[in-house]
Amino acid sequence: MKFQLTILGCSSATPTAERHPSSQVLNINETIFLIDCGEGTQIQLRRNKIKLQRINHIFISHLHGDHYLGLIGLLSTMSILGRTNDIHIYSSPLLQEVIDIQIKASDIHLNYQICFHFLNYEKLDLLFENKNVETFSFPMIHRIPTCGFLFISTHKEKNINKEVLNKENIPIEAIKQIKNGADFTTEDGRLLKNAIITKENVLPLSYAYCSDTIFDESIVQYIKNVDLLYHEATFMNDMATMAKEKFHSTTVEAATIASKANVKQLIIGHFSARYNDLSPLLIETKTVFDNTLLAEEGKVYSLSD
Amino acid sequence: MKFQLTILGCSSATPTAERHPSSQVLNINETIFLIDCGEGTQIQLRRNKIKLQRINHIFISHLHGDHYLGLIGLLSTMSILGRTNDIHIYSSPLLQEVIDIQIKASDIHLNYQICFHFLNYEKLDLLFENKNVETFSFPMIHRIPTCGFLFISTHKEKNINKEVLNKENIPIEAIKQIKNGADFTTEDGRLLKNAIITKENVLPLSYAYCSDTIFDESIVQYIKNVDLLYHEATFMNDMATMAKEKFHSTTVEAATIASKANVKQLIIGHFSARYNDLSPLLIETKTVFDNTLLAEEGKVYSLSD
Repeated sequence: MKFQLTILGCSSATPTAERHPSSQVLNINETIFLIDCGEGTQIQLRRNKIKLQRINHIFISHLHGDHYLGLIGLLSTMSILGRTNDIHIYSSPLLQEVIDIQIKASDIHLNYQICFHFLNYEKLDLLFENKNVETFSFPMIHRIPTCGFLFISTHKEKNINKEVLNKENIPIEAIKQIKNGADFTTEDGRLLKNAIITKENVLPLSYAYCSDTIFDESIVQYIKNVDLLYHEATFMNDMATMAKEKFHSTTVEAATIASKANVKQLIIGHFSARYNDLSPLLIETKTVFDNTLLAEEGKVYSLSD
Repeated sequence: MKFQLTILGCSSATPTAERHPSSQVLNINETIFLIDCGEGTQIQLRRNKIKLQRINHIFISHLHGDHYLGLIGLLSTMSILGRTNDIHIYSSPLLQEVIDIQIKASDIHLNYQICFHFLNYEKLDLLFENKNVETFSFPMIHRIPTCGFLFISTHKEKNINKEVLNKENIPIEAIKQIKNGADFTTEDGRLLKNAIITKENVLPLSYAYCSDTIFDESIVQYIKNVDLLYHEATFMNDMATMAKEKFHSTTVEAATIASKANVKQLIIGHFSARYNDLSPLLIETKTVFDNTLLAEEGKVYSLSD
């Protein structure tokens, strides 16, 4: 079971020479999600050797430029490189207008379908599920309608015990039913109970993305006990007033949310361009929530083996 | 007299991990022009330590994404960083629609005016002039309406001979008239003829930008004898058929245009992502036009001392 987060961009509104605007890739057992798509995301995907055609689901938290301006370039490149598979975009309806007019301006034709799914900015909402994962959006408070995202790995099918499988010569055709709970009768008539042929599932893993948001305790209910939380920490604590004015959070506020939600680990990101050295932000966050990491572009954060 | 070109991006439609989409900066005696603005241009400006607020004129050749998708991010960053000066954008009217809808989607307010100047895709057109430079657009043939740009340094005012200025104690108030051709009478009644107080102007310098375009000899008339020509060479000669189909040019075609236009020096760029090593493109171009350079991101090409 793979559960890997790769940060592609962790800068706030204005990028720096070293830090890109928001974007990250979450790989849950080879289902690959792109979360936000700031300017330059397609180049960051290449630099990090992530095959962009394997992305089928793109989540756009809100329509500030640093969270979506790389999208039209990525969609265009996907088409040029021969994509024919549908792509699913979870966003505000306004994004569809923006993309439509840019396609018109360039007089291009995408060789695949974009399936838009419009976010609900009022309540928790299931966006997508397959056998590996459930994804949700939840409301956050920012200057324009904004959602956070929650990803939970699931194991709806049981895992087969391969030792028993080989020993008993269980045919491939029977596996699907066993995964769904069926017993199996061997050729010599012995009944193997399902519990013998299957193994306990590993526990689900969970990841929550909260960027951009003002300090807002109402999000705690959605992200309670997650294994990994990415929470914006645009400013240090001495700029709490400005953070509030701009509907952003500070280091201490991110840590407070992590603590109240009882998350296992926190990554802070969306750093203001004013900070060259990020270590003071990490130190300050750790005073409230010790198990914190800095977002680093190109770094892979893995919850699995 | 400064006349410096800095390449920020020289990739064609799909960027690579090393090469960005089209953008370049031309500095003519501290009037700074941005020519095309592909995705990531604002980051490239920072990496190359070019102060983005000093850009007052942006020329967009056409509305394929690799030539303009960095614009809205740059405009937004300029506002966030406190810009109040007008900015002039020379482009298709469709670009105004694209920018307007993106500003609406982000619910942002720019703290300065954008002055749009719509390109004439039929004939040579004077876009902007000041005491240092005249800029023109001219039509090119591509899949959508596209212009090339021509920049000619000018010296409409005469240069003052500083030795005479100091020796004769000529007051600052008199300099403007002298630059416009007036003689000067000293305090002790001597008439100094204008030719004594001023120096010969240096010769004008010129730069032409041709990207994107099919091989098209009709552009030769506009770029005749320029000191420096940037011409796209998306493909090598063995892909001439594809170049034609896609309304692009090959190395040999770029060199042929340079030769027919009798330019002093050629820079080739807008390279297809299929080429990792660009040296074969340079070698092939030089077989037809020897004084050729490769576009290299971050490199400054200077026509002045």
